[in-house]
Amino acid sequence: MSAPKQNTGEELKHGLVVYLAGQIHDDWRDQLRKKAGERGLPIIFKGPQENHDRSDDIGELIKGKQPNPVYRDHAASEFNNLRTRIWMQKADVVIALFGEKYRQWNTAMDASTAIALNKPLILVRPESLHHPLKELSQRAQVVVETPDQALDALAYVLED
Amino acid sequence: MSAPKQNTGEELKHGLVVYLAGQIHDDWRDQLRKKAGERGLPIIFKGPQENHDRSDDIGELIKGKQPNPVYRDHAASEFNNLRTRIWMQKADVVIALFGEKYRQWNTAMDASTAIALNKPLILVRPESLHHPLKELSQRAQVVVETPDQALDALAYVLED
Amino acid sequence: MSAPKQNTGEELKHGLVVYLAGQIHDDWRDQLRKKAGERGLPIIFKGPQENHDRSDDIGELIKGKQPNPVYRDHAASEFNNLRTRIWMQKADVVIALFGEKYRQWNTAMDASTAIALNKPLILVRPESLHHPLKELSQRAQVVVETPDQALDALAYVLED
Amino acid sequence: MSAPKQNTGEELKHGLVVYLAGQIHDDWRDQLRKKAGERGLPIIFKGPQENHDRSDDIGELIKGKQPNPVYRDHAASEFNNLRTRIWMQKADVVIALFGEKYRQWNTAMDASTAIALNKPLILVRPESLHHPLKELSQRAQVVVETPDQALDALAYVLED
Amino acid sequence: MSAPKQNTGEELKHGLVVYLAGQIHDDWRDQLRKKAGERGLPIIFKGPQENHDRSDDIGELIKGKQPNPVYRDHAASEFNNLRTRIWMQKADVVIALFGEKYRQWNTAMDASTAIALNKPLILVRPESLHHPLKELSQRAQVVVETPDQALDALAYVLED
Amino acid sequence: MSAPKQNTGEELKHGLVVYLAGQIHDDWRDQLRKKAGERGLPIIFKGPQENHDRSDDIGELIKGKQPNPVYRDHAASEFNNLRTRIWMQKADVVIALFGEKYRQWNTAMDASTAIALNKPLILVRPESLHHPLKELSQRAQVVVETPDQALDALAYVLED
Amino acid sequence: MSAPKQNTGEELKHGLVVYLAGQIHDDWRDQLRKKAGERGLPIIFKGPQENHDRSDDIGELIKGKQPNPVYRDHAASEFNNLRTRIWMQKADVVIALFGEKYRQWNTAMDASTAIALNKPLILVRPESLHHPLKELSQRAQVVVETPDQALDALAYVLED
Amino acid sequence: MSAPKQNTGEELKHGLVVYLAGQIHDDWRDQLRKKAGERGLPIIFKGPQENHDRSDDIGELIKGKQPNPVYRDHAASEFNNLRTRIWMQKADVVIALFGEKYRQWNTAMDASTAIALNKPLILVRPESLHHPLKELSQRAQVVVETPDQALDALAYVLED
Repeated sequence: MSAPKQNTGEELKHGLVVYLAGQIHDDWRDQLRKKAGERGLPIIFKGPQENHDRSDDIGELIKGKQPNPVYRDHAASEFNNLRTRIWMQKADVVIALFGEKYRQWNTAMDASTAIALNKPLILVRPESLHHPLKELSQRAQVVVETPDQALDALAYVLED
Repeated sequence: MSAPKQNTGEELKHGLVVYLAGQIHDDWRDQLRKKAGERGLPIIFKGPQENHDRSDDIGELIKGKQPNPVYRDHAASEFNNLRTRIWMQKADVVIALFGEKYRQWNTAMDASTAIALNKPLILVRPESLHHPLKELSQRAQVVVETPDQALDALAYVLED
Repeated sequence: MSAPKQNTGEELKHGLVVYLAGQIHDDWRDQLRKKAGERGLPIIFKGPQENHDRSDDIGELIKGKQPNPVYRDHAASEFNNLRTRIWMQKADVVIALFGEKYRQWNTAMDASTAIALNKPLILVRPESLHHPLKELSQRAQVVVETPDQALDALAYVLED
Repeated sequence: MSAPKQNTGEELKHGLVVYLAGQIHDDWRDQLRKKAGERGLPIIFKGPQENHDRSDDIGELIKGKQPNPVYRDHAASEFNNLRTRIWMQKADVVIALFGEKYRQWNTAMDASTAIALNKPLILVRPESLHHPLKELSQRAQVVVETPDQALDALAYVLED
Repeated sequence: MSAPKQNTGEELKHGLVVYLAGQIHDDWRDQLRKKAGERGLPIIFKGPQENHDRSDDIGELIKGKQPNPVYRDHAASEFNNLRTRIWMQKADVVIALFGEKYRQWNTAMDASTAIALNKPLILVRPESLHHPLKELSQRAQVVVETPDQALDALAYVLED
Repeated sequence: MSAPKQNTGEELKHGLVVYLAGQIHDDWRDQLRKKAGERGLPIIFKGPQENHDRSDDIGELIKGKQPNPVYRDHAASEFNNLRTRIWMQKADVVIALFGEKYRQWNTAMDASTAIALNKPLILVRPESLHHPLKELSQRAQVVVETPDQALDALAYVLED
Repeated sequence: MSAPKQNTGEELKHGLVVYLAGQIHDDWRDQLRKKAGERGLPIIFKGPQENHDRSDDIGELIKGKQPNPVYRDHAASEFNNLRTRIWMQKADVVIALFGEKYRQWNTAMDASTAIALNKPLILVRPESLHHPLKELSQRAQVVVETPDQALDALAYVLED
Repeated sequence: MSAPKQNTGEELKHGLVVYLAGQIHDDWRDQLRKKAGERGLPIIFKGPQENHDRSDDIGELIKGKQPNPVYRDHAASEFNNLRTRIWMQKADVVIALFGEKYRQWNTAMDASTAIALNKPLILVRPESLHHPLKELSQRAQVVVETPDQALDALAYVLED
């Protein structure tokens, strides 16, 4: 049995950095990381803070108590947007996952930013959402229904 | 009584083109156009197709019957996105209006595109939406609660 | 009967400049100009030299006899590309028409340039060509089968 | 006898990433990879999916059966374009090979995209195609007749 | 005596839009406008809100009372930055005036933004400030000591 | 005899702004303006200061006596570069004329800037200069030997 | 006890390059470097020359004696700006520290350049400076009061 | 005595890639490489083909005999420009050396391209050339008289 292949500089030239936009209420990102590892795909996944409470609290944790909920949210967003901007700038591809729950305006924001920055976007959404997402879908590079299909797309890109 | 002032090339150099993103279920754009006219502001407003049925049907109206609802929506989006891309490219400023109803992913898409293209964004939303819109708000140039306040902002830009 | 409406600076702010890429073997551009005029659409159409012989001869007409056919073609292309680059830079939208005849690599070149420059592309092609054009079609903003449908798309953009 | 030189990060700074656009009906890319290896050139070659059937089927393989041939092609192009966009963005140079057979609109698309993105383009074509390719040739950085000459060009760039 | 020359569209093609960055505590902008008029220069001058109190109050005037002075300032800046971004995007040239008084970080911000956006910058400062402004001066297109010299520079640009 | 055609906003949409780079020791620019007028071409020509002494003296005329010839030249260049940058940014096309005399590094600078800014360049040079100008020529859009041929090129662009 | 982790190419893909703009009169940069090391953050910090005398003298050290203090400063700025431009272009994030002392126009220049280049800016300033910095603050990605808070922000970005 | 330090990926993050534009008639580039090595500066130098005959012949060597000297030069320039474009795109800084001999339009072209691409330019020229180079000098980031001073500038950038 061979040892796990180490990522060298050389391999990274052949590999991809992928930003994972979408809800942070379940472990879909870890699932994707695990499956990519099992398939031996040279991908580095980045994304937002996945601890939801920490994501909401981070503004006051760093800057201290704010005068009201609007400014508490404003402070948190300074740090969440800092994180998103940095990793999205380094990404080769963006995957955006939409689901039935939540308003998901952050996801729409990240997906649209990818399009406007000319980063290829893989949009993942259940078919039930096709109507409200029709304009965003038409501008995405790829539209699929599950994260596994998004991984299939990346594997296709990485095939020799 | 003076005649209505005509927009000449000279005046347009001093004027603004504004794209109005947001829902198309009431007449907020006409209200804004009317008030801008009453205040004598040299602004040309552009925006999406405001007839909701026409916006949904336009794909099949031009391209003919599509094989299923997903592709019907895809066809409609070709034309709606064509319209949005053209006028947004000509816009000096983008106003994006969010309300309590609908998912409004189009509005989030247009707002984020404005930010990514470095077009100043005026975000209009009721305070009740501050939490789900916190990341988008933090990146907007201006955040207000009513279209009238957005018009106040434009009037401030246009003051001598 | 009212006089023909003159294009003023004001109207051009509401109007479009459209580049017409594609074969120069029939009068499809004149047809389009005529129909746009009949529908009262404020559009300025630009495009390549439509006199085919002049397009092939222009290099030697200006620069003099070249040493062989390859350099004769090279000289002609200097002037044809000059024309295309200038008008495409001024265009808001590009229409590219593909037909059954000819290799049409110029058309593919202009269409792809529009995409890469982030100018919305309307691709016109008979359905019989869908397979060889599939990658270009997937990146176009709009895909239709006739120039009339392309004009419908522009009319939709220009509707109040 | 010394061991084959390994590509380190240092060497890659001196090396090139090259995208190989063109037909996928013979093994010209493997030939080029082999010859570059024999000449010891530090080049990483990338390109489209070279298995023609897989390239046509990939849309339905990942997204499932589509309602008709146009949409089957559209689905395949989502993934083929994803692959092309990612590797072309990483490329320092693009080589585009044209031959006598096929319409090769993909090749023209990739070649034109390289020009518009300011990536140097090496165009390879038999002299018999000079006339229909004259505009594209005039905008390429280098025009040659065989892949071996394209490799000579890269070797010249890499000479001390 | 001839009538004052009207700016037509034609003349504006030959004219300039100039953004005037700097302090708003005296009437240097009006002086400049007046002198440009007297010299018949086809220049449109734009700039920040020149009423200092209005500039500080505008946030609360439009958005209502804010919870503390930091957020009061934040709100005002939303509108002041909106104004600056819009007019600076339309400007052909930026003049930035520094004086002995005030911290003038806004002026430094506008001057640096002009440089980064590749808009030619005319820096106006008394020689006494040369040391603290040395890095900004070295990157400006022109450095002079008085607004009159800045106008001389624009007149030189506009000479036949 | 018809009255001279006035340039309206409408016509300017169809017209061109051309920057004329090159030596300022004879009246080639006036010749070109005159011939363009005679041919009825809707072109606005811009260029550097054509009074050679004024071009060399302008730094000290505006900024006062400088401490040595290097700084005298530096001061003059602030204003000459201001002029060039402004008009070149507004230009649709750049014509650069090289002759046998002078070093003409300004001309090479303007020509190269046009290429790097993706403005089409028309290079005019006697055939005797082909060797030292070979790299610049290969990157120009058009290479001709006389200003009249450059005007022929513009006339070709403007043909219906 | 494990050996200190070495930065490999792989880790740098996960790490950040940060430019530290601000005064060079105390050792705040070294403090930040030390604390980042203690927290194990994979960050490379770059910044201006921190030896104040060397920063002022560098122009004459390399170019020789200049004719007066203005040109002495000009010469020094050539080299200081060279350094800033190179490292800022490589930076993923810019931290700009403002304090009570000095005019700090360099700091404002670097902070504004970061914004205009779309590099996320972390602005550090005591609350006492909120009024004169209000426009710059409103455009920063993050505003905090101490360098330690800036480091907290970077640590948040780097959390798994 | 320690072994010579190897350049790792980590070090390259701290190092620079420098393009050396200028004449190829003596060994100034090798001198610079040698001195940089002696000073331990982590710099990779790239530049044009330094074998003058090979540079002139390369077009016909790869493409075969051309019909006349102009086309022979044109062919050579395809490959020389390919080389320059590739390495200049990878460079962090450009050094351009002007001397008394030759027309050096290539050098002016490379220097101006660096400015237009926002790459910092170090211009090296004897003081005797200050007048014909005044406009180029005023736009350079640094102007010095010898390659050694250019190396001092790079060493200053690389100081801790």
